[in-house]
Amino acid sequence: MPIFQRDGVTTVLRRSAEYEPRRSWRTWLIGRPLRTADAPHQTIGKTIGLAVFASDALSSTAYATDEILFVLAAVGTAAFVYASPISLAIVALLAIVTVSYEQTIHAYPGGGGAYIVARDNLGELPAQTAGAALLTDYILTVSVSVASGVAQITSAYPSLFPYRVPISVGLVLFIMVINLRGVKESGGIFAIPTYFFLAMMFLTVGSGLTQYLTGGLGIVVDPPHLPREPFMQSVTLFLVLHAFSNGTTALTGVEAISNGITAFKEPRSRNAGITLIWMSAILGTLFLSITFLAVKIGAIPSEAETVISQLARTAYGGRGLLYLATIAGTTLILIMAANTSFADFPRLSALLAADGFLPRQLTYRGSRLVYSRGIATLALIASLLIVLFGASVTALIPLYAIGVFLSFTLSQAGMARRWWKVGQLALGKEIRERGSTLRYEPRWALKMMINGCGAFCTAVVMLIFTTTKFRDGAWIVILLMPILVAVFFSIHYHYRDLAARLSLERYGAPPRVSRHRVILPVSGVHRGTLAALRYARCLSDDITAVHICTDPAEVERLNRKWESWGDGIRLVVLDSPYRLFLEPLVAYIEEIAAQRQPNETITIVVPQFVPRHWWHNLAHSQAAMMLRMVLMFKPGIVITNVPYQLDNWPATSEGQDSP
Amino acid sequence: MPIFQRDGVTTVLRRSAEYEPRRSWRTWLIGRPLRTADAPHQTIGKTIGLAVFASDALSSTAYATDEILFVLAAVGTAAFVYASPISLAIVALLAIVTVSYEQTIHAYPGGGGAYIVARDNLGELPAQTAGAALLTDYILTVSVSVASGVAQITSAYPSLFPYRVPISVGLVLFIMVINLRGVKESGGIFAIPTYFFLAMMFLTVGSGLTQYLTGGLGIVVDPPHLPREPFMQSVTLFLVLHAFSNGTTALTGVEAISNGITAFKEPRSRNAGITLIWMSAILGTLFLSITFLAVKIGAIPSEAETVISQLARTAYGGRGLLYLATIAGTTLILIMAANTSFADFPRLSALLAADGFLPRQLTYRGSRLVYSRGIATLALIASLLIVLFGASVTALIPLYAIGVFLSFTLSQAGMARRWWKVGQLALGKEIRERGSTLRYEPRWALKMMINGCGAFCTAVVMLIFTTTKFRDGAWIVILLMPILVAVFFSIHYHYRDLAARLSLERYGAPPRVSRHRVILPVSGVHRGTLAALRYARCLSDDITAVHICTDPAEVERLNRKWESWGDGIRLVVLDSPYRLFLEPLVAYIEEIAAQRQPNETITIVVPQFVPRHWWHNLAHSQAAMMLRMVLMFKPGIVITNVPYQLDNWPATSEGQDSP
Repeated sequence: MPIFQRDGVTTVLRRSAEYEPRRSWRTWLIGRPLRTADAPHQTIGKTIGLAVFASDALSSTAYATDEILFVLAAVGTAAFVYASPISLAIVALLAIVTVSYEQTIHAYPGGGGAYIVARDNLGELPAQTAGAALLTDYILTVSVSVASGVAQITSAYPSLFPYRVPISVGLVLFIMVINLRGVKESGGIFAIPTYFFLAMMFLTVGSGLTQYLTGGLGIVVDPPHLPREPFMQSVTLFLVLHAFSNGTTALTGVEAISNGITAFKEPRSRNAGITLIWMSAILGTLFLSITFLAVKIGAIPSEAETVISQLARTAYGGRGLLYLATIAGTTLILIMAANTSFADFPRLSALLAADGFLPRQLTYRGSRLVYSRGIATLALIASLLIVLFGASVTALIPLYAIGVFLSFTLSQAGMARRWWKVGQLALGKEIRERGSTLRYEPRWALKMMINGCGAFCTAVVMLIFTTTKFRDGAWIVILLMPILVAVFFSIHYHYRDLAARLSLERYGAPPRVSRHRVILPVSGVHRGTLAALRYARCLSDDITAVHICTDPAEVERLNRKWESWGDGIRLVVLDSPYRLFLEPLVAYIEEIAAQRQPNETITIVVPQFVPRHWWHNLAHSQAAMMLRMVLMFKPGIVITNVPYQLDNWPATSEGQDSP
Repeated sequence: MPIFQRDGVTTVLRRSAEYEPRRSWRTWLIGRPLRTADAPHQTIGKTIGLAVFASDALSSTAYATDEILFVLAAVGTAAFVYASPISLAIVALLAIVTVSYEQTIHAYPGGGGAYIVARDNLGELPAQTAGAALLTDYILTVSVSVASGVAQITSAYPSLFPYRVPISVGLVLFIMVINLRGVKESGGIFAIPTYFFLAMMFLTVGSGLTQYLTGGLGIVVDPPHLPREPFMQSVTLFLVLHAFSNGTTALTGVEAISNGITAFKEPRSRNAGITLIWMSAILGTLFLSITFLAVKIGAIPSEAETVISQLARTAYGGRGLLYLATIAGTTLILIMAANTSFADFPRLSALLAADGFLPRQLTYRGSRLVYSRGIATLALIASLLIVLFGASVTALIPLYAIGVFLSFTLSQAGMARRWWKVGQLALGKEIRERGSTLRYEPRWALKMMINGCGAFCTAVVMLIFTTTKFRDGAWIVILLMPILVAVFFSIHYHYRDLAARLSLERYGAPPRVSRHRVILPVSGVHRGTLAALRYARCLSDDITAVHICTDPAEVERLNRKWESWGDGIRLVVLDSPYRLFLEPLVAYIEEIAAQRQPNETITIVVPQFVPRHWWHNLAHSQAAMMLRMVLMFKPGIVITNVPYQLDNWPATSEGQDSP
């Protein structure tokens, strides 16, 4: 027990008797509490790293093709020939974004999410915008991935289709509980579903391509119906752009590695960078192949059966074991993708909260060392979205990916500005920088060009996005984003204002209390009253007892009792012709408070009955609690409840007074 | 301002600045508050008295016939010939009950409800049983009457049938608001619907009987379908008894006058007694005629159309103005009947509460001098029943009337016992009597016989009731009754125990507090902390500040600040390896409490941030409130929140510490 002793102030540091948290249904559900010191410090290699961080990005191959075909279906299946060129354009965009992020990874070895990059290089407003965009998209990732995972299940087992909303919500809650337990990111367990998915997808795609090349690829047997009749005559530019922007959902999750660089083994940036390139290569290959094959086999986009399901049963010639394994792998990776958001959302919201832009409670790590409140918030909002949109991926997609591209743009723009500042350094100019991690780097102009190009491309895609999908639901996100940013800033100003008002800078020592008045509301004279009176006595000698009289017949009796038991204390009886209790008492207290001198404190001592069982409260009025709620907002008045628990008092005889 | 001054104790009686309640949506809804002194003291004559107290009883003619036919329909319409003899038996029962109650009215001029009669003559257990029975039945009266009133409306306007549940609940809430406003019972406004109903019923029945005697009575045109196919071969005794017990619902409400004797003009008992006889005569006549005519016109019991509706459109030859007036009158009287319960239930529950068998809050009269909480409780439970039973009168009926007959039996048995005691008086024996209103009366033996006969008959009916309707739902009430009585007594024992423990009899003056320890939890050092510290200073010199350390890096910084601002007070730092706040603090306080000396008091002074707007609370942890909830149940510990409202403090500069 170390003891600091300085200037007469003794500080004792105690280990608090090693307080061990109790076991309860919570420990059963989420595991025994962990000490702060138990926080894991493990790092992972490239193979596990790919599995952990790529699940979000790779899983988008499960729905990106469907979403392109859904748009083209407005003209009819003939328009599906546009799907492959559109996919090529998306893969080109992916290449640009990958190269751009590669630079971020090397520039921010400590983790370079869009929020941090924007905060360091662009300022608070872009940073908060990136934060709002990312948080929105993490929520949508959960909703879209889980809905899409359930769509895979209902493709294989159509009888489950009517139950897709409860199944989806159940899955979200399951992932929530897993995350409340605290999943070690470094766990090799993450690798299994990811590599299983990759194996099954390459098998499916490979088998399909082989059949295509040998001329043996069939078309989908018994394909689902088109969701609606074609209503357009010809393919328009708008339609192609719409399909393109729908398809860019394939890029969601690409930023995950740049957030999690610290989890990699040294040399961190190098390992993370190589993993990013591998991930993009796999993603691009898979996405292109799936789109190409989907068109060849005549797959039809449908809520009832996913393109992956149609492709797998065509490639494998029916709903056999390999088909089911493909569906299972796809479902697993989608749930893993949702799980990624459960790691990212709480961490980012804790970051924002630590900067004072979200409620501070989000920085609190729960008993399992995870940001429990962030996890619960995410599960709640994602479930709500699933219910609202009926677990339909196509309905959710227009909301999705805007946030991703907004954060892409801000992140790349931040990087470009960073290189510009590096260039200024090179030109000998002084730079005021927040983190001051800035040092001269060669080829800054090329790097600025690359990131600038990335920012430009993603900005253009975002514009296409908002234009083509505005009416389908994108407007919700576009409306939500400034509202969120405004809320973030108002929270920030609240905390700043608070800190300034509470600050002790230029603050004189508070004057001593010169007068302490105690007011003691009395409903009857009994042992509870006397306990409160006794307590009031040890606070001050300036005590006034107050009785609210709703029944004049009672006053004389109370007076007589007070004479015997009141210890000489003045009793004020307030007449209450309207049988109100709180209002006249509060009016009286306010009158007293208005007359008080400087440095006078008023304490209201309220006897409060504490029943043995909570439901005994039903037999008692909650006047003490009500009084507290009303007086809370009056400055300079302190309310003290003196509880009387009857278990300690023996019954003497049958009395008449009860509260 | 009268001042009592005795023995150094000054009592000041203040008129509380004539506190005038504020206007709000409540005053708009239920009217401006009334003073206690404004309680009305008006009395009514026989004509108004009949209208006020007879609506409940008379309204049962609207459904009693239907309920007899519903049971007989099990054999088929041929069994309907039994309806008239069954009705005759019920009217005979009515005569017995009336004569029996006539005696109660004269014996209890101050109001002789079953509860009071049972309490005075039979003891606490029968009294509470009567109380439970009556309260249950008042609730059912509301549900049944409103459901039946709405059934009349949907008979006239079948398109409203699907909306009968919301319409019924809406009506209950409407009646609730009217009663929260406080209806003057003596208001002549009550007379209008009752006499309108009587006029319309006598016109319908008269017209029907005239047509029957002149041979011009037709049969129902386009009658509703039988609710189900006849499934019995012949009429059994059980069936007849079942139909009889269903029909006895006609007797519900007969006791109303005996409850309300005080509302009558002098000579009270005589006026009330005459009104009772008139009421029974009208009730008997109407009920007999309706049943007789219903069988003659071939009326079919149905949820879709009431017998009254079928009778009215047959008598008037269609759905004309007179038909609609009959339906309107019936609906009105049914709603009036529900209204009667809204007068009786709160009054009886206040009576039980005053005797300590129900929560005391039920004795509190609201701003309009009515027992608001009883009114709200009644509306809530009655609405719940309507929703649960889908506003079906036939589904609710098996629950109904058991309570009424139980209270009839108890009330008549109480009267019989009373006459027996009067007889003992006559024989010169000493009687110990609660109210001691007992005096010798001639012909006590005859009166005892009459009341005894009433008790016997109603007890037999009750038995028939429970036997024939047990499976239909009567078991719910039979199960509920002992539970309610048990709850009443447990409330009573709770209050008695409380009063005994709080009693000052044989209680020495409490010892003075000899030591006052103050514990001051500190999360950071800021103006809020200093305000709490300043307050703690004025309580005691024995102060310990406690900091829960979840982040060891913070401790050194806190220590330095405490040196400057801590006023020399000892600071204990508790290490919290599990990042918990409440648990280590509570463990520490309990440790201190365990070591305390006799007459030592411990006060926890908690700085509590009070935000400007309630939603600012979302940005702050509610640790102060949680601490209060946890420590509330620990004896001898007082928790004081020192609120700090920031509006009073100017911001000095941007600080770093915020709570």
